Amino acid sequence: MRITAAKPAPGRRAAQGPWINGIAAEHIDYRDRGLQYGDGLFETMRVRGGRIRLLEYHLERLFDGCRRMSIDAPPAPALRRELALRAKPHADAVLKLILTRGPGARGYRPSGRERCTRILSLSAPPRLAAAQSSQRVRICATPVGSNPALAGLKTLNRLESVLARSEWSDERIWEGLMRDTDGNLVCGTLSNLFVRRGAMLTTPVLDRCGIAGVMRRWVLEQAASLGLHPREGRVKVGRLDEATEIFMTNAVAGVVSVSVVEHGRRRIRIDSCAVATRLRARLELE
Amino acid sequence: MRITAAKPAPGRRAAQGPWINGIAAEHIDYRDRGLQYGDGLFETMRVRGGRIRLLEYHLERLFDGCRRMSIDAPPAPALRRELALRAKPHADAVLKLILTRGPGARGYRPSGRERCTRILSLSAPPRLAAAQSSQRVRICATPVGSNPALAGLKTLNRLESVLARSEWSDERIWEGLMRDTDGNLVCGTLSNLFVRRGAMLTTPVLDRCGIAGVMRRWVLEQAASLGLHPREGRVKVGRLDEATEIFMTNAVAGVVSVSVVEHGRRRIRIDSCAVATRLRARLELE
Repeated sequence: MRITAAKPAPGRRAAQGPWINGIAAEHIDYRDRGLQYGDGLFETMRVRGGRIRLLEYHLERLFDGCRRMSIDAPPAPALRRELALRAKPHADAVLKLILTRGPGARGYRPSGRERCTRILSLSAPPRLAAAQSSQRVRICATPVGSNPALAGLKTLNRLESVLARSEWSDERIWEGLMRDTDGNLVCGTLSNLFVRRGAMLTTPVLDRCGIAGVMRRWVLEQAASLGLHPREGRVKVGRLDEATEIFMTNAVAGVVSVSVVEHGRRRIRIDSCAVATRLRARLELE
Repeated sequence: MRITAAKPAPGRRAAQGPWINGIAAEHIDYRDRGLQYGDGLFETMRVRGGRIRLLEYHLERLFDGCRRMSIDAPPAPALRRELALRAKPHADAVLKLILTRGPGARGYRPSGRERCTRILSLSAPPRLAAAQSSQRVRICATPVGSNPALAGLKTLNRLESVLARSEWSDERIWEGLMRDTDGNLVCGTLSNLFVRRGAMLTTPVLDRCGIAGVMRRWVLEQAASLGLHPREGRVKVGRLDEATEIFMTNAVAGVVSVSVVEHGRRRIRIDSCAVATRLRARLELE
């Protein structure tokens, strides 16, 4: 598959507006399987000083997803050039890439001849970035369905996150924790969970469901050099009571300390943000 | 919400081509939450002699889905008029309605101010319609994830069906049976399952996952008048060995008899198509 050369951006609108398959555009074919079935993937990336943070991790997850879903991915060098071109003018922004299998004939089965659609759009970073400590989170009722074939991937099937995020409107609550149907904590609606007890740093294993965030991967890789023992495992809600520290991660917000977990009427309070603070300092260098 | 008056169709293309929000069009806003998150529903309807078969059941399921997902549905009378207008010129066709929450700002949480997008498209009925008996089906490896909040609804999150339908390319196999993560049979990739043993007619209960098809509902309602005892329950694969008759249903194909179920190297063979034949005869009158 060839990537069409990106047109020079003639003005502010083209610089800020979306690009679809390399061209400034805002509409997609209604037959696109991304719309028809959620048949695609996405990456939400943080741009800092004209560069995409953890770009290689984003690309690895995206291409891994394409392989697992048999989507004919765009060539990596051309995609990399296009992403760099979009990121370059921006000191601080969020860059979202949607990659669908592309338009197709009717029916669930892909023909194998589809040509993927890529949609690149920019937006301002969320306000939270300025207050990464002392966030309140809650435990959601909406469960995450299990499906090992899709576990870890950031697909366009995001209704569970939509329903879970619709459970609360209190703006003081930053995030909601989601459980699988067996009651194990899996992830937030848009983040991953870390629970530290002493030197033991645990994050839910994502073999059945959940999205394997790029920031989660980065934290797991950093942990040993901070004197921690990282592990992936099943995490029940009860584990939160024993935590020394809890934090959540995503590519846009980075590492976010949790001070309160609301579980119905209960409040679990956590004092420490020691490891999260060190991780945030280190992330500034990425 | 107001439905824009449909424009008169000036020629064949407009008569056959898609309508988006009442106007002949083929493209949707990339910000539509249907694309971004699969945040929407759909109905695939069979048109016979200019009428939509089981229209009321389709509308009930659609509006039930809108309620459960808090999507601001279009007014029923206007939607009904639009569907009738599209169906009228066609002796035999498939009419697909996609209803998304509409374009929205970034983030999973709906603002509550979105205006839904409706996409109506027509296509030719599949060839199968002529051979509803003696179909081969197989048991898929891809499981159906459980989520009671979405169970029964026909949402745009259809990746599990896409993966399951991608498991085979042998055109002699009509359909694949999917199981939940506990090994219970749930549905086909695009149909519902019925297993008859004597007068006992069982279909998988859809309280955790699966789509509650309109043809499934119709069969359940017909069963008593055919001397059958209909029930919804958990159905393990072993139950297929004891079956007198197996058939599958959907709104487009109707009632399809199954003669062989392939389970790995095993073949389960079923002789009877007695009840399915009676149901098909009755369906001709609908």
